Amino acid sequence: MWASKLGRLRRCFHPDSIRTLTSTPAVQANVGFIGLGNMGQGMAINLIEKGHEVLVYDVDPSAVEAMIARGAQKQGLPRDVAAHADHIVTMLPNNDIVREVYTGHDGLLGQIQPQTVLIDSSTIDPAVSQEIAAAAKAKQAIFVDAPVSGGVNAAAAGTLTFMVGAESAGDYEKAKVILDAMGQNITHCGEVGTGQAVKICNNMLLAISMIGVSETMNLGMNLGLDPKLLAKILGSATGRCWSVDTYNPVPGVMENVPSSNHYQGGFGTALMTKDLGLSQDAATRTKSATPLGSLAHQLYRVMCNSGYSGKDFSSSYEFLKKKD
Amino acid sequence: MWASKLGRLRRCFHPDSIRTLTSTPAVQANVGFIGLGNMGQGMAINLIEKGHEVLVYDVDPSAVEAMIARGAQKQGLPRDVAAHADHIVTMLPNNDIVREVYTGHDGLLGQIQPQTVLIDSSTIDPAVSQEIAAAAKAKQAIFVDAPVSGGVNAAAAGTLTFMVGAESAGDYEKAKVILDAMGQNITHCGEVGTGQAVKICNNMLLAISMIGVSETMNLGMNLGLDPKLLAKILGSATGRCWSVDTYNPVPGVMENVPSSNHYQGGFGTALMTKDLGLSQDAATRTKSATPLGSLAHQLYRVMCNSGYSGKDFSSSYEFLKKKD
Amino acid sequence: MWASKLGRLRRCFHPDSIRTLTSTPAVQANVGFIGLGNMGQGMAINLIEKGHEVLVYDVDPSAVEAMIARGAQKQGLPRDVAAHADHIVTMLPNNDIVREVYTGHDGLLGQIQPQTVLIDSSTIDPAVSQEIAAAAKAKQAIFVDAPVSGGVNAAAAGTLTFMVGAESAGDYEKAKVILDAMGQNITHCGEVGTGQAVKICNNMLLAISMIGVSETMNLGMNLGLDPKLLAKILGSATGRCWSVDTYNPVPGVMENVPSSNHYQGGFGTALMTKDLGLSQDAATRTKSATPLGSLAHQLYRVMCNSGYSGKDFSSSYEFLKKKD
Amino acid sequence: MWASKLGRLRRCFHPDSIRTLTSTPAVQANVGFIGLGNMGQGMAINLIEKGHEVLVYDVDPSAVEAMIARGAQKQGLPRDVAAHADHIVTMLPNNDIVREVYTGHDGLLGQIQPQTVLIDSSTIDPAVSQEIAAAAKAKQAIFVDAPVSGGVNAAAAGTLTFMVGAESAGDYEKAKVILDAMGQNITHCGEVGTGQAVKICNNMLLAISMIGVSETMNLGMNLGLDPKLLAKILGSATGRCWSVDTYNPVPGVMENVPSSNHYQGGFGTALMTKDLGLSQDAATRTKSATPLGSLAHQLYRVMCNSGYSGKDFSSSYEFLKKKD
Repeated sequence: MWASKLGRLRRCFHPDSIRTLTSTPAVQANVGFIGLGNMGQGMAINLIEKGHEVLVYDVDPSAVEAMIARGAQKQGLPRDVAAHADHIVTMLPNNDIVREVYTGHDGLLGQIQPQTVLIDSSTIDPAVSQEIAAAAKAKQAIFVDAPVSGGVNAAAAGTLTFMVGAESAGDYEKAKVILDAMGQNITHCGEVGTGQAVKICNNMLLAISMIGVSETMNLGMNLGLDPKLLAKILGSATGRCWSVDTYNPVPGVMENVPSSNHYQGGFGTALMTKDLGLSQDAATRTKSATPLGSLAHQLYRVMCNSGYSGKDFSSSYEFLKKKD
Repeated sequence: MWASKLGRLRRCFHPDSIRTLTSTPAVQANVGFIGLGNMGQGMAINLIEKGHEVLVYDVDPSAVEAMIARGAQKQGLPRDVAAHADHIVTMLPNNDIVREVYTGHDGLLGQIQPQTVLIDSSTIDPAVSQEIAAAAKAKQAIFVDAPVSGGVNAAAAGTLTFMVGAESAGDYEKAKVILDAMGQNITHCGEVGTGQAVKICNNMLLAISMIGVSETMNLGMNLGLDPKLLAKILGSATGRCWSVDTYNPVPGVMENVPSSNHYQGGFGTALMTKDLGLSQDAATRTKSATPLGSLAHQLYRVMCNSGYSGKDFSSSYEFLKKKD
Repeated sequence: MWASKLGRLRRCFHPDSIRTLTSTPAVQANVGFIGLGNMGQGMAINLIEKGHEVLVYDVDPSAVEAMIARGAQKQGLPRDVAAHADHIVTMLPNNDIVREVYTGHDGLLGQIQPQTVLIDSSTIDPAVSQEIAAAAKAKQAIFVDAPVSGGVNAAAAGTLTFMVGAESAGDYEKAKVILDAMGQNITHCGEVGTGQAVKICNNMLLAISMIGVSETMNLGMNLGLDPKLLAKILGSATGRCWSVDTYNPVPGVMENVPSSNHYQGGFGTALMTKDLGLSQDAATRTKSATPLGSLAHQLYRVMCNSGYSGKDFSSSYEFLKKKD
Repeated sequence: MWASKLGRLRRCFHPDSIRTLTSTPAVQANVGFIGLGNMGQGMAINLIEKGHEVLVYDVDPSAVEAMIARGAQKQGLPRDVAAHADHIVTMLPNNDIVREVYTGHDGLLGQIQPQTVLIDSSTIDPAVSQEIAAAAKAKQAIFVDAPVSGGVNAAAAGTLTFMVGAESAGDYEKAKVILDAMGQNITHCGEVGTGQAVKICNNMLLAISMIGVSETMNLGMNLGLDPKLLAKILGSATGRCWSVDTYNPVPGVMENVPSSNHYQGGFGTALMTKDLGLSQDAATRTKSATPLGSLAHQLYRVMCNSGYSGKDFSSSYEFLKKKD
């Protein structure tokens, strides 16, 4: 701890750092970061660049090395991170790994210090967020769920959108100090779990819209309509939606979207399918009827099973249309 | 014919009419109008008010009387309308009635004059539009399909949106002279039938979006989210669509939409179901896969069978949520 | 006519025919046959073999030649068939071709003789059957719809199942005389159109069952169950159905079904998709809610668009499961 | 323990018991029973009647009293049951309660004795069965999942069907000794969890079939078919299934089924919806595509949300058809 505090002081007073002092956050922190995938790396680098001391852990040694080269410190286990950090961000792939990292044998909660602020940016089941928040509270730690939208580019640029579930406005503010280093659009959505709830609701609606636009564009073209004209009219009528006017799934209708680049890049079908699985779990648990969300889930599942996993989720257009 | 021409002259030179001369269409016409329902009446009144001579026919005598009181002339049969009009607008409920009015025993094509401009604003199967266009062409008449969007209020205000399918730019311009009196946003979509194609494509996407938003809002609320906050976040995220940001189906989220008025007014579930039937017919005929459009059709059908026919189509929210 | 009667006499008294006299129908007839596809050829051959005089028409000259070689007489147009036959069987691919053959310029009804018995074994929209029955009645002819089940093998063997819609028991009996030569299981289902209704109802339920069994077997196997054991248990439980116990879609579970022969043979996905289109048309027209039937239609449509048209419809299992 | 052994001896040698000795199981046991709902009571009574010593626990005191009156012994907590029984049967409503009863603070595994045979007849997630089996194994106990089919009447009659998941043939045989007292048709399906897998697979297929039959019968009747005739033809054709030939959902088609008794009795829609939730969870976890199963789940969910929870699941027919 001492070493890292010294490091922080040194950085602050180093002549080169003066010019950036105005953008330095008011409260600098020892931030643990667990989960250095494509998203996590960009987020952690932003934390470092904004002046935080960053302590990292990941199962992949090469991801850890890459962050050490950027100025992060390596920790051997999640609980070691907990021993040395006052704020911890996690960015992990699924419910089970989140549970393991927080409550497993070597998990964060085994060494957590009172008042530590835990921020989980993974996209997981809101019920799991609530379960971990309760476990953290038992150790006098603060847990917020803060899933993101915006993708790898926004993670690198520090312009992510965060949807935050926090028990109180105070908890939210404590997390926001750290989130400010990584994102732009940060919203307190309600109790713990509501950040996840907003995320899976939005992505369910997005999946429905995207398949709906895919079907509609395909039908219109089969009825003799020009796709650009159809997209334009729909975009100014009651069928208007992000999937038609900003991310159209038909190749050639728009530039700079995955559909015009062989469905490369963007948001992969496998990831969308995972998020739809979460919304279906939540719907089943809350006895909510989601017939279209459920069918969208199934169609993306069939796409995954048919070779579309790695393509952008707008490839639903390609999947549905008649192949030559 | 003479009487009506005289009437037109008289109106033009009457001192009271001078002030409105600037808004009088360049070409005044003898316009037949068949189909005086809620939409048709508003449209016909606009034609009269813009200075056209309007000859009306409807199976409902009271609807005809109402238009006579507004200055229209009554005709005994569709073919009588054809005998006296140079432009004819039809606004009818379904494929079969359109076929009857055009090609039936007493239909328009029995007495149609060469060069008559036939404008069908009904929402029907694009294939029926093409079939009638061919029959009209055989009589040297011009047929365009010009379905509308905008509802009863826009019909009354003369601010409808028309989506026009016309064989040529020339045909489109001939129809536009008349459509200008009834609408604002008029688009040439392509060949005959493409006006219908755009209409049924838009409404299919709209139905999918509306049910999708209904499911999403319901799920989010069951997960503890405030509906206004959820609507606001979705409206600024990738789930953004007209059904979420302009016509939200959850009571109390927006003012002045049917959901906040017991789902009264607006666009009835039965009408949406009819349009979805047309999109499904077109999808089957063109071998287009429309899984979500098809399920939306079925859900609206179940709603019709369960007492929702007369409610606005945003009542899908009420249908899906748990009833107390 | 005389020539054909002579032919019939000759055949009856030819020494070789004596042994089959007992199976000769009580009433021999001049039977027109239009539509010599795979099914039609088998049916027509059975009519010939049972002693009927058969007059054939088809757009494909080679199919006609094949039947001439079997003893049929060729006719130049459908109306020529009508001029010479007292009973006529049609076996055609879709609504439009049936309409053309009956009511088109060269169609049967142009030359039809009073009391002719018209039997349409095509699978088409029941409403089209009713429309043609009305047109036939106006010419004092009798029309029944008599779609089949059983496939090419049963057509060749003369063991088809016929579902017959006939205005009266008398009409049904008149048709049955001819149908007896081609099938075994013949049922009078009600008014004209009800044969088609039964056919499309059965095939809709069959499609739902087959996809349902495909999903269930796949899920069970993914949960670690042995497919043969699962099929056996389902077949003796409440999930029992033809698709699980007689035509299981999982390769290797049963012998002598298409799933164990690379989905070759059987009932093609494109044909099932066509029949589901008919049931959806009928459902839309009668305002019947068919959510699963509709989704089955869409899934088979996606299969057709993805290269499964020519495979047996039980290939839904292959379509849904994870491809390596 | 001594008291109960004495009781057993007494019962065996009591003169009145001699006549039933031949039907007494070879191995009598101290059987714990937890979960005395409608199903559980019938099952526990059969255990008592077949000569087992039964130790009961339930959260509902009146259910416990009813069993004491039948000869059972009361225990204060699940772990007390574990302390005194060599075999334990559980029949509980859902995953969470099963987890609580086995692994909670007062749960069975807290006092379990080595070699105890644990039989869970609840219908739950196969993954939860596996999780509990592992926990039991750590205590040297044996766990099998043995969900049932057959309903309340079969539970009372001791004629249930059991689908058993057991790690080995030996484990299966140990459970079978007890299951024989409660059921007739007992099948070893494979590893732990496969009993549940078969159960949820069968019920998913059943739900699909039942809604499919409901749609088909409704469509057929709307097309003019007599429902009894239609049911008979479907039952002898490729649409044949249990839902059409044994449990037809249309009132009046069959006697002695819930549809002919206002959908009273039978298998409630809420229970079917719960089972479909389990199959969907399993499908999501195993990445299995189940489009029709998923839609069936959603439709039953809408039914639950619309007042059908307590009606038999064949009321899907009533839900889908047009209400007057």
